[in-house]
Amino acid sequence: MYTAKQLQEKVQKLFADEVFLDEPKELYEPIAYTLALGGKRIRPLLLLAATELFGGEIEQAFNYAIGIETFHNFTLLHDDLMDKSPIRRGQPTVYRKWDENTAILSGDAMNILAWRYFIKQEHPKMRQILNTFEKTSMEICEGQQYDMNFETRDDVSLSEYMEMIRLKTAVLLAAALKIGALTAQADSADIERIYQFGIHIGLAFQLRDDLLDAYGDPATFGKQTGTDIKDNKKTYLFLLALQKGTKEQRNRLTELFKSHPENPEAKINEVLEIYKTLDIRNDVESAIKRLHQDAASCLDDIRKPENNKTLLRELAAKLLDRNV
Amino acid sequence: MYTAKQLQEKVQKLFADEVFLDEPKELYEPIAYTLALGGKRIRPLLLLAATELFGGEIEQAFNYAIGIETFHNFTLLHDDLMDKSPIRRGQPTVYRKWDENTAILSGDAMNILAWRYFIKQEHPKMRQILNTFEKTSMEICEGQQYDMNFETRDDVSLSEYMEMIRLKTAVLLAAALKIGALTAQADSADIERIYQFGIHIGLAFQLRDDLLDAYGDPATFGKQTGTDIKDNKKTYLFLLALQKGTKEQRNRLTELFKSHPENPEAKINEVLEIYKTLDIRNDVESAIKRLHQDAASCLDDIRKPENNKTLLRELAAKLLDRNV
Repeated sequence: MYTAKQLQEKVQKLFADEVFLDEPKELYEPIAYTLALGGKRIRPLLLLAATELFGGEIEQAFNYAIGIETFHNFTLLHDDLMDKSPIRRGQPTVYRKWDENTAILSGDAMNILAWRYFIKQEHPKMRQILNTFEKTSMEICEGQQYDMNFETRDDVSLSEYMEMIRLKTAVLLAAALKIGALTAQADSADIERIYQFGIHIGLAFQLRDDLLDAYGDPATFGKQTGTDIKDNKKTYLFLLALQKGTKEQRNRLTELFKSHPENPEAKINEVLEIYKTLDIRNDVESAIKRLHQDAASCLDDIRKPENNKTLLRELAAKLLDRNV
Repeated sequence: MYTAKQLQEKVQKLFADEVFLDEPKELYEPIAYTLALGGKRIRPLLLLAATELFGGEIEQAFNYAIGIETFHNFTLLHDDLMDKSPIRRGQPTVYRKWDENTAILSGDAMNILAWRYFIKQEHPKMRQILNTFEKTSMEICEGQQYDMNFETRDDVSLSEYMEMIRLKTAVLLAAALKIGALTAQADSADIERIYQFGIHIGLAFQLRDDLLDAYGDPATFGKQTGTDIKDNKKTYLFLLALQKGTKEQRNRLTELFKSHPENPEAKINEVLEIYKTLDIRNDVESAIKRLHQDAASCLDDIRKPENNKTLLRELAAKLLDRNV
C-alpha cells in the first residue's frame, strides 16, 4: 500500500508529465495554465486511493485521475468567469488574464479533454465508469445553477443548501472514489459504500470551507476571511443563524446580507457577533463531526481489511481538519 | 431504403419525442429552447443515412444522431455568446433571452448531455465511436479559436481559411457520417471514404454559406445579405479577392474591411463591385463544384451497391445547391 505522501507524489508527477499544450496556442495555453496552477489534487488522490483500497492497479486508474481533475478545473474556470472572480490559487483567473471568450472556449475544450482521458483505454467497467462521470458532470452543473438561483432567493432552507452542496461539491469527490473502485472492479455493494463515504466527506468538506471563510487564519488559509459575508453568500453558517436567531436577529442578518458597504469590516464584525451569540461555529463543527462519523461508518462496512482503509481515513481526516 | 423525406421525418420525431426539461428549470429550459428551434438537422440526417448506406439498423444510431445534434447546438449556443449574435433561427439567442451566465452554464450542460447519448448503449464499435466524437469536438473548438484569431489578423491565407472551416464546419459533418458508418460496422477503408466525402461536402457547404451571405435572396435565405461584409468577416470571397485583385483593389478591400460605417450599404455595394470585377462569384461556384465532384468520387469508391448511395448523393446535392 502507498502512503498518502507517495500517492500525492504520483499524482503530482502525473500532471507534471502530461503535455497540455497544442495548436492553436490561444486555445491550449489557458488550459495548460489552469492545470499548472496546482491545487490540492484531492479528486485524483481519492480516486487512486479507492483503487488501492480495493486491490486494483493504480496505473489502470491514471487516465481517470487526470480526467476528473481536468473536469474539476474546467468547472472552476467557468465558475470564475460566471462569478467574476479575479484570483484563483493566488494567480489571475483565465478570464482576467486573457478575456471572457478565451475563458468560455478554453473551458469547453477542457470539458472535452476530460472525456479524452476517460475514453483513452479499454476497461471491463468502461460503461459504468463513463456513466458515473457523465451523471456527475451534469449534477455539478445543476448544483452550480442552484447556487446561482440562491443568490436572488430569500427563502433558502438548510436542506436546500445541503442538496446544493451535495451536487456542487460532494458528488465529484464521491464519483472520484466510485470510479477508483470501479477500476479495481469492486463489488456493487462496496461501490455504493465508498460513494456514500465520498458524499459525507464532500458535504463536511464544504462546511469546513464555509467555516474557514469566516474563521480561518488568513496567513494559512491564503485568502481574506469574511469574503462570504462581504459578498452576501448564503452559506451554512448564515442559513443556520437565520434558523436559530430571534426575529430581530433574523431581520438584521437579512438586512446586512443585502448591503454592499464600501468598507465591509463593520458588517463582517456584526455578522460574526451574531454568529457568536448563536453559537454557530460550534454547531457547524458538530455537523462536520457527524458527517465525518457517518463517512467513517460507510468505510467500516466495506468488506476489505482495515489496513486497506487507513489511507482513506487519513485523507478524510486531513481534508476535514484542514486550515487551508 | 428510406427516402430523404422519410429519414427527415424520423429525425424530426426523434427530437419531438425526447424530453430535455428537468430540474432546475433555469438550467434545462435554455437547452430545451435551443433544441426546439429546429434547424435543418443535417448532422443526424447524414449520420442515419450513412448507417443505411452500409446496411445498418438506423434505430441503433438514434442515440448518436441525437448526441451529435445536441453537441452541434451547444457549439452554436456558445458561439452566439462569443460573437454576441442576437438572433438564431429567427429567435433571440440564449444569452439575449436569458443572460450570459445562463448561456455559459446551459451550454456546458448541453456538451455533457451530448455525451450522455453517446454512452447510452453498448456497441461493438463503442470506443471508435467515442474517440471520433471526442476528436471532432476538440477540432471544432480549435476551428472556433482560429476563426477568432483571424478577426485580428491581416495575413490570413486561403489555405489557412480552408483549414479553419475544415475544423469549424467540415469535421462534424464528416464525423456524423463516420459514426453512422461505424454503427453499421462498415470496414475501415469505406469508413475513411465516407469521412472524406463528408469533409469535401462540409467545405463546399461553408463556401455555399459564404456565397449566400453575399448573393442570397433575403426572402428565401431568411437573413439580410451582406452581413459578412458589414462585419468585416474574412470569408473565402474576401480572401480570394485579396489574392486575385490588383494592389489598388487589395488596399481598398483591406481599408473597407476595417471600417464600420453606420449605414453599411455603400460599403457592401463597393465590395460586391470589386468581387464582380474579379469574377469572384464564378470562382467560388467552381470551387464548390470541384469539392462536390471530389466528394462524389469518394462515394463512388465505396464498395456498396449504387442504390445504397442515392440518398447521400441527393442530400449532398440539396446541401450544396440550397438557397437557404
